[in-house]
Amino acid sequence: MEMFNVKKRIEVLDILKNEFENFEIKSEIIDILDSIGRVIVNDIVSKENVPEFRRSTVDGYAVKSKNTVGCSESLPAFLSIVGESKMGEGIDIVLEDFQAVYVPTGGIVPDNADAMVMIEYTEKFDDEIAINKPAAVLENIVGIGDDVKINEIIIERHTKLKTQHIGALAALGINKIQVYQKPKIGIISTGDEIVPIETDLKIGQIRDINTFSLAAMLNETGCEIVYKDRIKDDFKLIKKSLEKAIDLCDVVLISGGSSVGNHDMTPEIINKIGDPGVLVHGIAIKPGKPTIVGKVENKAVFGLPGHPASCIISYKVIVEEFINNILLKHNNKDKQIVAKSGFQVHVSSGRDVFYMVKLNEIDGEYIAQPIHGKSGMISLLSKADGYIEIPMEKEGIEKDALLKVNLFR
Amino acid sequence: MEMFNVKKRIEVLDILKNEFENFEIKSEIIDILDSIGRVIVNDIVSKENVPEFRRSTVDGYAVKSKNTVGCSESLPAFLSIVGESKMGEGIDIVLEDFQAVYVPTGGIVPDNADAMVMIEYTEKFDDEIAINKPAAVLENIVGIGDDVKINEIIIERHTKLKTQHIGALAALGINKIQVYQKPKIGIISTGDEIVPIETDLKIGQIRDINTFSLAAMLNETGCEIVYKDRIKDDFKLIKKSLEKAIDLCDVVLISGGSSVGNHDMTPEIINKIGDPGVLVHGIAIKPGKPTIVGKVENKAVFGLPGHPASCIISYKVIVEEFINNILLKHNNKDKQIVAKSGFQVHVSSGRDVFYMVKLNEIDGEYIAQPIHGKSGMISLLSKADGYIEIPMEKEGIEKDALLKVNLFR
Repeated sequence: MEMFNVKKRIEVLDILKNEFENFEIKSEIIDILDSIGRVIVNDIVSKENVPEFRRSTVDGYAVKSKNTVGCSESLPAFLSIVGESKMGEGIDIVLEDFQAVYVPTGGIVPDNADAMVMIEYTEKFDDEIAINKPAAVLENIVGIGDDVKINEIIIERHTKLKTQHIGALAALGINKIQVYQKPKIGIISTGDEIVPIETDLKIGQIRDINTFSLAAMLNETGCEIVYKDRIKDDFKLIKKSLEKAIDLCDVVLISGGSSVGNHDMTPEIINKIGDPGVLVHGIAIKPGKPTIVGKVENKAVFGLPGHPASCIISYKVIVEEFINNILLKHNNKDKQIVAKSGFQVHVSSGRDVFYMVKLNEIDGEYIAQPIHGKSGMISLLSKADGYIEIPMEKEGIEKDALLKVNLFR
Repeated sequence: MEMFNVKKRIEVLDILKNEFENFEIKSEIIDILDSIGRVIVNDIVSKENVPEFRRSTVDGYAVKSKNTVGCSESLPAFLSIVGESKMGEGIDIVLEDFQAVYVPTGGIVPDNADAMVMIEYTEKFDDEIAINKPAAVLENIVGIGDDVKINEIIIERHTKLKTQHIGALAALGINKIQVYQKPKIGIISTGDEIVPIETDLKIGQIRDINTFSLAAMLNETGCEIVYKDRIKDDFKLIKKSLEKAIDLCDVVLISGGSSVGNHDMTPEIINKIGDPGVLVHGIAIKPGKPTIVGKVENKAVFGLPGHPASCIISYKVIVEEFINNILLKHNNKDKQIVAKSGFQVHVSSGRDVFYMVKLNEIDGEYIAQPIHGKSGMISLLSKADGYIEIPMEKEGIEKDALLKVNLFR
């Protein structure tokens, strides 16, 4: 029996960074509507000023502000209406003193007008308006480039696009965009006891939960699953499947078979297939300690624990970080919910400890409760809102302490 | 010019609830891997106990705990190994006193064993083990149904499925699931000045941003866009387009044309097409006040403001709530981030006021800063992390106050 040479999580991520920093993910051009969750290759730069013309922010009249000085409800300023700025059209009227032009919200303001008077502060008499409130210089006018200047960076490269970016891209006239291809992933599920999920279980059998958990999380991370296999604990079969997966994929995940036990073949197989082979066997995280990290033929291979909850945590804190930050090079981290601890726990394991938690809202505050169960995997999976981390240098959590919760989606 | 008869947001949602509570969205059966973000129709109930057999949580030996009483490193208990519980197989060994069976993690524990001793606390000599730590009754054993009992509800009906549910469904042997169909949505963008986004702008023109913003948000809400149109401010054309959309869709969104101005035809068109027509014209929200809510031929029609930021807020706080909570009947709300206010603002508008904000993390705390710009729509869209609400009964926000931020995704 080989013992673990356990490494800290931060060391593992450093090793991965060194090994894969120059790994090249190809890019592709896609429609912006398909781009949510994808990582952009280049800075998005505006090719124009926005707006390109001076625009009114109100329905009202374009005026020379000096013609409204001192006016009031009892002593309005009277201006003659000399035209209308139509939406979607330019306007070439040059205002003379005591003239006004009607401009709707978003419409172009004539060049030599310097203020917009809201329609609410006017009364209209045939082709004349009475203005009962003085207008300040540039009031209710958006200047050229006030929103975005030409050549300004609007979205930084390596940003993972979110819903609201789509509107910004549309505003800039961009309907296609260059993004990194989805990393190609293989999932190999190993174990004599693992059966397809639709199977009526015979005694001793366990459904292949991890393939589904992993596939769901990988989709959310923005990956494409191009290879799936489920095999018994057989050295030759696993080796053959892993070789095939490495051919097809950027990253291969093997679940099960990574605990120190009778059937622990994964590290040996990884080493046998190519160099450098196993980089890490054992990470100082709980759960997830028996996680394996390897590199073969310039592809990343992860051996994940078979227990579904451990598998999820190991994916989240090692594999997802690797895919997001190292392969795809982006750094816009998910925001975390702050919650009050509804429990107290003492840990001194020398590992980063993770708890799945459920959030309850009480008096406008979130209270985090751990979901227990030594092997209560279904309860864990169906009830958890997210997970918290107790870093190894901390000795536990006090009740009512503020926690940062990483949400599941 | 028709004036608004402004209603509170809560009243508007009540009106929608009354009008559409019995609206029927059909259901369909889909693969669980395609089901993230979909709303399930029925409670998910376990058809079996999980686990169905007593399972070990460690690699080690199944024993009778009484045979380990008082043992220690200096005075181990000696037991003879009489077999092995193989993964994926049953085991019919009946232990006699001072006998042990090897069981790997997840393996079946023989019926009359009442504890598992971790391999770390044993030494093996041929077919005998020395145990140097007493085992407690039921130690390291998961009982039948400890995780999930037969007939237990695992996921409640009307839950919007998240990533982690997929693992729970797989564990229960469920690979297909009944969900509500995606609501069918039409988007009509109106305005003489609105042009396709790939257009080189001529003066006075504005790109059709809202169709893209809305499509992105609708996809995220779990809807399907089945109709899109972009038309000039022409009564007949808009009416024709809206009639077609109502035929095809559950919900129709019309952006632009809902402000009180020269071109305000949407309410009249809605009323002309059918009863009851316009239900609400004007909502006490800022931005988003000119939002229209209507019902025609038992379909919902929303007139959304043309300004992109207003359109987004109006979608989020009215339309999305309607689709999620009334059409799809689900109530698992997105969790909100708590952040400290980095600004102070006084409002007394008699409306629910929404600010788009950016979150900065400083010393482990999120600080929310508003994104300003009277018409700075691209900056707003590209920089906002989410939005906050100041309900109408509040007069503003103090600096350092705790805010709840609704995140964009």
